[in-house]
Amino acid sequence: MEFRLIDRLQALTAQARDDVRLGIGDDAALLAVPAGQELAVAIDTLVEGVHFPRGTAAADIGWKALAVNLSDLAAMGATPAWALLALTLPVQPAEAQQALVDGLADGFAQLARSHGVALVGGDTTRGPFVLSVAVHGFVPPGQALRRDGARVGDLVFVTGTLGDAAAGLQRLAPSPDPDEEKRRVALRARLNRPEPRVAAGLALRGRASACIDVSDGLLADLGHVCMASGVGAELVAPMLPLSSALLGCCDEAAARDYALSGGDDYELCFTVPPARAGEVQADLARLGCGATRIGRIVAGDGVRVRDADGQWLTPVRSGWDHFPDETARP
Amino acid sequence: MEFRLIDRLQALTAQARDDVRLGIGDDAALLAVPAGQELAVAIDTLVEGVHFPRGTAAADIGWKALAVNLSDLAAMGATPAWALLALTLPVQPAEAQQALVDGLADGFAQLARSHGVALVGGDTTRGPFVLSVAVHGFVPPGQALRRDGARVGDLVFVTGTLGDAAAGLQRLAPSPDPDEEKRRVALRARLNRPEPRVAAGLALRGRASACIDVSDGLLADLGHVCMASGVGAELVAPMLPLSSALLGCCDEAAARDYALSGGDDYELCFTVPPARAGEVQADLARLGCGATRIGRIVAGDGVRVRDADGQWLTPVRSGWDHFPDETARP
Repeated sequence: MEFRLIDRLQALTAQARDDVRLGIGDDAALLAVPAGQELAVAIDTLVEGVHFPRGTAAADIGWKALAVNLSDLAAMGATPAWALLALTLPVQPAEAQQALVDGLADGFAQLARSHGVALVGGDTTRGPFVLSVAVHGFVPPGQALRRDGARVGDLVFVTGTLGDAAAGLQRLAPSPDPDEEKRRVALRARLNRPEPRVAAGLALRGRASACIDVSDGLLADLGHVCMASGVGAELVAPMLPLSSALLGCCDEAAARDYALSGGDDYELCFTVPPARAGEVQADLARLGCGATRIGRIVAGDGVRVRDADGQWLTPVRSGWDHFPDETARP
Repeated sequence: MEFRLIDRLQALTAQARDDVRLGIGDDAALLAVPAGQELAVAIDTLVEGVHFPRGTAAADIGWKALAVNLSDLAAMGATPAWALLALTLPVQPAEAQQALVDGLADGFAQLARSHGVALVGGDTTRGPFVLSVAVHGFVPPGQALRRDGARVGDLVFVTGTLGDAAAGLQRLAPSPDPDEEKRRVALRARLNRPEPRVAAGLALRGRASACIDVSDGLLADLGHVCMASGVGAELVAPMLPLSSALLGCCDEAAARDYALSGGDDYELCFTVPPARAGEVQADLARLGCGATRIGRIVAGDGVRVRDADGQWLTPVRSGWDHFPDETARP
């Protein structure tokens, strides 16, 4: 390919990592996993028009492609180390392509540097606009946060706030009202620049009984934990952590729906035995993201939600299908 | 996603690998690299209409997506272990989608099983038809085959035969002539079902001074070795290994051009000090792929080709740009 994205990314993400024995430029990278550590690996794809709207800033796309993958490592309690990038880009005029590539590289590299992640390999091809990133991290044997460890009686927590990204997705156009615009910008930032909860994941090792990142929506993702653990969960809607930006731009019922079913928040949802809840909350508060108790694990299966008045809610949908597909063929 | 490709692939590729501590189904896989081994990792993408023509059999696509990646490991002398698959597929009627997914899974799994590769993670999304595969293998520290070790005086070899895949790409339509059709089928098989030279790569460890797989075309790929090693190469055109299928369907000059500039052969091109050439050739002959001496490393830079009469050839192009793009935007 003519566009030198990988070279540019390599320059921007050059990390002084002793464990990269041979980086970009050969048929494969050569890497050394630290003795006594297991390797955690994940891969995730972003497709234009499916995972980000056409017109999204290139730097946001580059950031997000790495962020959604680091979020997977965070959910395992792994320390990020290396990334691979497979980028497919349409042929376009040189100037536009250079701007796109520079933006992608800048956003990707900015997040990579902040987590000490080295780009060790990549592939660039022409075609529709699709990015796949694979990430690698380390975790001591037996200490990874899995989905299958939730037990009846555990408390359910979530970091940060929920629903912001989904609400941001509905607010593409700037608002003439300054307060509304400020909220819109805050929500859009949650959508475009998710902060993978890596430090929180590390703090949860040895404490959380199960963990997952909220990418498809709380109900769907906690549902995966329940399924894997053979348990059910009961949530209390008024306990869901909602940002002031979200509450400022819709009523509480709509905010709750965003929080339950919206995706792309990349917070961690985890379960903790009650005896450990206090220390976990204190530690995550110190890390800045905080952790809010939102329910508990019960016998049975599935996720049920109780409203403020104690009534069971019937969610309209159990997940979030991103936004109307711009690329699907008929 | 509704299509259960990853589940199906998991079932088909389930390997009894002790080093997979946690496979598909959580936020990341947990893997154990054997003590004292380095990890070799690579990623490659196939795009419909760019890397394979529309209408290619699904099983061939699944096979090739893994094969091009295993070829990268082969070129490093690494033993394959694990793969990740990121698949983007258009929305289509359920029956067609199921057939496509089944075919992809069958082809991928067939090759994975033959190399003991476990699929440990994946991601499926809707969008244009794009597959990215990341592979992981093991290599003892310091023994990987790199591009930068070629030395003046080394001999240049290539496994198997060259040019078949590129010639096959020009022959989409069946021929009414039975002999011509037999040749066409053989050439198409080289294009659609490349055999990664994993065993050859392992046999070259500690012997070859440099190695690369021929994916973009011999001139381009050997050019990468020369660039990385700070040397030049002289090839002798009549020494290029050409299959009877290729020679049967075009004249020798055309066959030579396919061999020099055609891509997608996935043979290994490597350099060996003269003293080791005999043993290497004998070992690769025993492995079935053979190795043909095609030239030597010289001082200088770039790759030059001498014809039968000793004249220097001037290649029209120094690489192979796949085939006319079906997907590029204007």
